[in-house]
Amino acid sequence: MGSIVQALKWIGGTDGVLELIDQRRLPRESVTLLVRDVEQLHEAICTLAVRGAPAIGVAAAFGPVLALQKLADGATTLDGVRQAHSACAFLATSRPTAVNLFWALDRMRRKAEKVGSHPQTTLGGLHEAILAEAKAIYREDVEMCRQIGRHGEKFIHEGAGVLTHCNAGALATAGQGTALSVLFEAQKKGRHFKVYADETRPLLQGARLTAWELRQAEIDVTVICDNMAGWLMREGRIDAVITGADRIAANGDAANKIGTYSLSILARHHAIPFYIAAPSSTFDLNIANGAEIPLEQRNGEEVTRLGSVETAPAGVGVYNPAFDVTPAENITAIITERGVIEKPDNSRISHLLRES
Amino acid sequence: MGSIVQALKWIGGTDGVLELIDQRRLPRESVTLLVRDVEQLHEAICTLAVRGAPAIGVAAAFGPVLALQKLADGATTLDGVRQAHSACAFLATSRPTAVNLFWALDRMRRKAEKVGSHPQTTLGGLHEAILAEAKAIYREDVEMCRQIGRHGEKFIHEGAGVLTHCNAGALATAGQGTALSVLFEAQKKGRHFKVYADETRPLLQGARLTAWELRQAEIDVTVICDNMAGWLMREGRIDAVITGADRIAANGDAANKIGTYSLSILARHHAIPFYIAAPSSTFDLNIANGAEIPLEQRNGEEVTRLGSVETAPAGVGVYNPAFDVTPAENITAIITERGVIEKPDNSRISHLLRES
Repeated sequence: MGSIVQALKWIGGTDGVLELIDQRRLPRESVTLLVRDVEQLHEAICTLAVRGAPAIGVAAAFGPVLALQKLADGATTLDGVRQAHSACAFLATSRPTAVNLFWALDRMRRKAEKVGSHPQTTLGGLHEAILAEAKAIYREDVEMCRQIGRHGEKFIHEGAGVLTHCNAGALATAGQGTALSVLFEAQKKGRHFKVYADETRPLLQGARLTAWELRQAEIDVTVICDNMAGWLMREGRIDAVITGADRIAANGDAANKIGTYSLSILARHHAIPFYIAAPSSTFDLNIANGAEIPLEQRNGEEVTRLGSVETAPAGVGVYNPAFDVTPAENITAIITERGVIEKPDNSRISHLLRES
Repeated sequence: MGSIVQALKWIGGTDGVLELIDQRRLPRESVTLLVRDVEQLHEAICTLAVRGAPAIGVAAAFGPVLALQKLADGATTLDGVRQAHSACAFLATSRPTAVNLFWALDRMRRKAEKVGSHPQTTLGGLHEAILAEAKAIYREDVEMCRQIGRHGEKFIHEGAGVLTHCNAGALATAGQGTALSVLFEAQKKGRHFKVYADETRPLLQGARLTAWELRQAEIDVTVICDNMAGWLMREGRIDAVITGADRIAANGDAANKIGTYSLSILARHHAIPFYIAAPSSTFDLNIANGAEIPLEQRNGEEVTRLGSVETAPAGVGVYNPAFDVTPAENITAIITERGVIEKPDNSRISHLLRES
């Protein structure tokens, strides 16, 4: 059995740095990026050096820790709380769709406020406390990934063909991923299966990241173009589809990488189960349904240029939504760290999220 | 109004050359390729310098004309017939799916046999006769394109959003295309509409060729990634889908560029009409249904490499079918040069093909 990669880690104490695998350069180069301040972290998130809803949340959690390193000598605890606040506010402008980002930043802000409001808290104590909180988010993410895998592995049968889209693997989390964690746990059970990785245009996270990760883990993986998925279903090669999610509404509608919606329709047409694997922090119960989820539009150049290669005539119009929304009715089950929600709807979702 | 490009033309008499726009280099460079022998023509078809089912047929028709140029002094008319035969047999090995190739080669072989069987036919006379036949195929293709457009333009309504896949334009024919001819004729009627061009991985014929052609013709075109099509339908941006076809079985099942099958399922789910525009030479009545159509598998490198850019880890498995089959039940109508076949089935197809 191969190994599972580690997308990000914190090195050092309150004066530490955040080390990321620079995912823009995979699979050609496996290079780490040392993030030393909030501006650099913001840019790393915007340009997808770190991506994947859970990983964005975990990386952002370390933002306030980095921010407090920049305070001048003589700064007060209140300065520290304000600095943490402004780091969180700035990082919240990096990407709009994944809710884990806002969830992690909220949690960091509340922690800073709570600890900072005690009159006896020193600035150093505040810094220690928010580092501890970021590390807790990190550790919980690692454990969450493992639990998602354990709850979901039963859906991956011996000999199955499994289709996945984009990257919901170790590279998208602090731990062993969400959708891919399910595969890693099925592999640990000794099951053999074949994974088809949609290349996932425009940024090819499937071809670049998922294929790379699964090969590291010695799982049988075949890359296909996104437009082939339906035909593979028709040919009987696909027994299950599994993806991650960036935000899930109260009714179970799930935003995920563009193309997921089409896959859900195609899977339904071919009577193939369609699973979403995501931590409970992906749910946004303030949002009634998918129509309210903000969907990021990205630059058209992502579509018309690949490295130095122009793939379309100069100046042509491009439409480049980064996400779409899969309606709950197309989702066979949502696999969370707390358990599996079959046929997700408002009551089943609120029941699972409330009970633990 | 802009102009419609010309994919191929014959220059000169029996000693002439076939001039092609080299479609491998579009849209970066608009370069013509002079094809002087059958080997070069075979390679041009295999490597997609010329592509699109009708264009392949027309280009191949000039193969025997080129072949006869190579005969040694003193060759007989029978040598000429044999030379034409072997050119046709060789060119038939270039690509397996598009039936227009076999249709055109059959027609050229029959012409050579028929003319060559007259005792008074000279080698020069044979050469003239097969050039005339190739030119007839060319002219008929031009006229066929126009007629397809005229029959189909009524389906493109004022203000419509139209999705197309791959390239079924002037670059895919000797004339003004099949699916795109419908758009050109709607434009001539003064109608305004918006075209979304699927980029069409792996070789990006939509982004490279369709977008380029439509811009030349001053039609509003927006490039999208293939995996976005379903979401655009959901957003209400698409009122019609129109593609070409490479081979249509007797029951109406239609082989076309990989991804067309998925689009047909997605269109059906969203109650969007799905049209196929193709000449009658695309029908293969010897084939009962789509399961019997041979589908070309192409090299995995088309998926994992774009120019000099590696898009997937070295050595990863790839599945790269170049075509899929859309079942007749998903096709609203097939638009041919002879008229429109709504809800295509065996009897409606044989009726239209027989009556003219």
